[in-house]
Amino acid sequence: MNGQMMQQPLLISSLIVHAERHHGDQEVVSRRVEGDIHRTTYRELAARSRQLAKALAALGVGMGDRVATLAWNGYRHMELYYAVSGSGAVLHTLNPRLHPDQVVYIADHAEDQVLCFDLTFLPLVEAVAARLTTVKHFVAMTDRAHMPATSKIPNLLCFDDIVAAQDDHFAWPSFDENTASSLCYTSGTTGNPKGVLYSHRSTVLHTFAIAMPDALNCSARDSILPVVPMFHVNAWGLPYAACMVGAKMVFPGPGLDGKSLFELFEAEGVTVSAGVPTVWQGLLGYMEANNARFSTMRRTVIGGSACPPAMMRAFQDKYDVQVIHAWGMTEMSPVGTAAILKGKHLAMDHEAQFAVQATQGRAVYGVDMKIVDAAGQALPWDGQTSGELLVRGPWILQDYYRSEGGSPLVDGWFPTGDVATIDADGYMHITDRSKDVIKSGGEWIGSIDLENIAMAHPAVAMAACIAAFHPKWDERPLLVVMKKPGAEVTREELLAFFDGKIAKWWTPDDVVFVDAIPLGATGKMQKNKLREAFKSHQLPT
Amino acid sequence: MNGQMMQQPLLISSLIVHAERHHGDQEVVSRRVEGDIHRTTYRELAARSRQLAKALAALGVGMGDRVATLAWNGYRHMELYYAVSGSGAVLHTLNPRLHPDQVVYIADHAEDQVLCFDLTFLPLVEAVAARLTTVKHFVAMTDRAHMPATSKIPNLLCFDDIVAAQDDHFAWPSFDENTASSLCYTSGTTGNPKGVLYSHRSTVLHTFAIAMPDALNCSARDSILPVVPMFHVNAWGLPYAACMVGAKMVFPGPGLDGKSLFELFEAEGVTVSAGVPTVWQGLLGYMEANNARFSTMRRTVIGGSACPPAMMRAFQDKYDVQVIHAWGMTEMSPVGTAAILKGKHLAMDHEAQFAVQATQGRAVYGVDMKIVDAAGQALPWDGQTSGELLVRGPWILQDYYRSEGGSPLVDGWFPTGDVATIDADGYMHITDRSKDVIKSGGEWIGSIDLENIAMAHPAVAMAACIAAFHPKWDERPLLVVMKKPGAEVTREELLAFFDGKIAKWWTPDDVVFVDAIPLGATGKMQKNKLREAFKSHQLPT
Repeated sequence: MNGQMMQQPLLISSLIVHAERHHGDQEVVSRRVEGDIHRTTYRELAARSRQLAKALAALGVGMGDRVATLAWNGYRHMELYYAVSGSGAVLHTLNPRLHPDQVVYIADHAEDQVLCFDLTFLPLVEAVAARLTTVKHFVAMTDRAHMPATSKIPNLLCFDDIVAAQDDHFAWPSFDENTASSLCYTSGTTGNPKGVLYSHRSTVLHTFAIAMPDALNCSARDSILPVVPMFHVNAWGLPYAACMVGAKMVFPGPGLDGKSLFELFEAEGVTVSAGVPTVWQGLLGYMEANNARFSTMRRTVIGGSACPPAMMRAFQDKYDVQVIHAWGMTEMSPVGTAAILKGKHLAMDHEAQFAVQATQGRAVYGVDMKIVDAAGQALPWDGQTSGELLVRGPWILQDYYRSEGGSPLVDGWFPTGDVATIDADGYMHITDRSKDVIKSGGEWIGSIDLENIAMAHPAVAMAACIAAFHPKWDERPLLVVMKKPGAEVTREELLAFFDGKIAKWWTPDDVVFVDAIPLGATGKMQKNKLREAFKSHQLPT
Repeated sequence: MNGQMMQQPLLISSLIVHAERHHGDQEVVSRRVEGDIHRTTYRELAARSRQLAKALAALGVGMGDRVATLAWNGYRHMELYYAVSGSGAVLHTLNPRLHPDQVVYIADHAEDQVLCFDLTFLPLVEAVAARLTTVKHFVAMTDRAHMPATSKIPNLLCFDDIVAAQDDHFAWPSFDENTASSLCYTSGTTGNPKGVLYSHRSTVLHTFAIAMPDALNCSARDSILPVVPMFHVNAWGLPYAACMVGAKMVFPGPGLDGKSLFELFEAEGVTVSAGVPTVWQGLLGYMEANNARFSTMRRTVIGGSACPPAMMRAFQDKYDVQVIHAWGMTEMSPVGTAAILKGKHLAMDHEAQFAVQATQGRAVYGVDMKIVDAAGQALPWDGQTSGELLVRGPWILQDYYRSEGGSPLVDGWFPTGDVATIDADGYMHITDRSKDVIKSGGEWIGSIDLENIAMAHPAVAMAACIAAFHPKWDERPLLVVMKKPGAEVTREELLAFFDGKIAKWWTPDDVVFVDAIPLGATGKMQKNKLREAFKSHQLPT
């Protein structure tokens, strides 16, 4: 026997419809590639999204067709989010930080039909256009006045022109909520990038989950600035959540330096932001140098890689901005956990609360987790035992797009590739990536805790801890350090800095200083390159 | 093309599984019918729910079978919420305040197989048991020590005994999320009660919606005490939301007087409550008489009928408790709107904010509304034009159970029977029930605003405004007033009290004083009875 409530599919278009009807005059503010600040509202953005949907249909885009973007965070990108998915087509957000060859591989693998791009990426698009065999239309995301006078791209279309050529009389189609909505490739460190194909259902459910009080806590009183790019797992879902709750949306465009971000935060009354640790270093550096204070900022979500405790303390203790340490993956839409206190923690002292916040957090409803040993047996949630982390839930990947390798699931669970502990309260703490873990005499040493300690040293700008060959223990930790400009610290001083902060046998065996640590396209340290660079490093014995 | 995320049905069992795994030691505290305070945790409650599921299966309860309850808010009732729905059976919460004949009609109509009841309702159950033709098993929700020594009910089972007879090795079954989960009858003022049959999908989506920051804003730092009964639209969804977010749950049992409630609020650190206006009068009366203050209460949800502004001011201005004025219906699971401020309101003065909070609020995401004229044409959202209110969304009724009358929908929208305005920001204000509206010379006068003004008079305990026959205008407002004990006020003083508060022609034509205003089973004023009582009332002309 079925219930007798209305059957309405969970569709992405319902988010912009809700924002238009119930929050029509709420602002969407963007720093544009063209250099100025642009202001619009959900009412206008919804109308332009409908015009854009008609324009795409006129270009031949149908249900299931892929429309690619190479774009910063901005209102035109948000219009594409709704126009493409709302029409039943698939929004494919390409990462412009990838090598051009990878962009070509991914666009070809996805069989993108249309490519929309910000003017910043015109040189990249010109360089690869001839190799994009499936792309039939190229659209520059700008107005007529800013269109390039000449371009190597034949028949280059102007975004604002194709929008203006349509009226907004368009009703969003209804279809099965399991229909594909958006596509995002993971840039793994090995093998070809793999596509993660989200559905309308998974996206709407994920949007509910991240807007909840114990996740990103989004409301119609917030002004949300996603620093995390819209080409990186849909800016962690914030362009959807903002519509669901009627929040003001502020887009930084290409202005991701500390000064540009800080000025936009202040000018637009930003209350919530989100990004990876590396972007916040620039902002904190600017604020420190200029003795600046936030007027309206209340919390920031930090994820993508573990937030160094020193950064968390700077935000919370110095600037009174709550850090929401969160964890997820492209394969998880992306949010899985958030480190939000429970009622039982409220009476604890500052340091005890900080220890909870420094974990990757507890699962949002909808996500379940487990840690397992090498035989796949579930391990206890004692905060001590570490094992491979697996997850499942309605916004977690079942299989990759075009599924060349077969489903990655293990008994219905997705293996994250992370090694973690989980405590009795469900707080998960990632100790390492399974490929980065240091296997010392049969025991595992997590590299992340070692890096966090090193990063807390005032002379250290960035630190990576990698496994180096050891004749007796097989592997031992080697600390790779990039010093802050002008700062000095010796190998011995750094090693002594670990005293009392960690088990003695976890202390790195050696330190090497480098000018730069290689970062991937999403800002994460590329430890595989470091391992390659130091594969012949001789540890002291 | 479909997305490639995991296919997991949205099931009610997932809520208790989440609470058990991620908030296992969170407390569930109940004032028992037996007289004491009982304490348990989600871990224990989840285990007992599984035992109970096995016990019900042993009684022959299968997928789709209806299991009825006649019970206060308490942990055993919550165990039934999860055991019954989680098994794929249908939880049917009977309203013990109904007339026994109605209880019999409803239980028979629902074809209930099992009836579980609190000891309070033993006399009621004994009185009707012989007439409950479909009920095969009667279960007293108590332990062995409190079982009645003798009972007119043959083979009366003991709840704690049947639970204890099973172990907790039970895996919640997986099934289609559209499966019926729970059944609640509306006690309309005319015709037979009608059943609203919720599904697992509608329940889980509604749970997300009510837990959001701009709805009931529930988190793992909250201690939630639902005063609204679990037999009244599932206590507005709070027993589900508490599990979703890991909040502490506090159940008042039969102790709904001001003193019992206040003491439980204080003892259990309650932060959030919810109930209809009539229950709050007792609490506020007790607090005033005892000069009491809340220590931990932060907000209360008031719905079911419009909250008198004077009550809202008492909570907010005197006791610093935010009132969330909310609106919904049994047919809406029930929440449709909540009067939460937007960012644009934060800079307004106190009275301007109060005016926003005094509306029924704006739609939560998932619910859409419109107001229409007599011809069904949509009316503008200008805060002035009133019309019949219609709603739609995935937790709104498609058709009543066993659908005798055919679907009530109009072009896919559910007609609420309310008359309302909606302003440009989406805030809806109910001016009347369509059957209560006073049609004076072709114009509509909303009775609720008139009642709210009368209720603000210090001598008035309760006031109803009804249509009375008028030879010239067809209908004119007649104010029916119940005075506070010992208070005095004249007809003339009351009518003068309306001066300057409302359009002159809306002022009631007459006042009658009564000893009591009849209330229905859910605490709402029964205006149909008043109209009947005063149908021959002669208005002054």
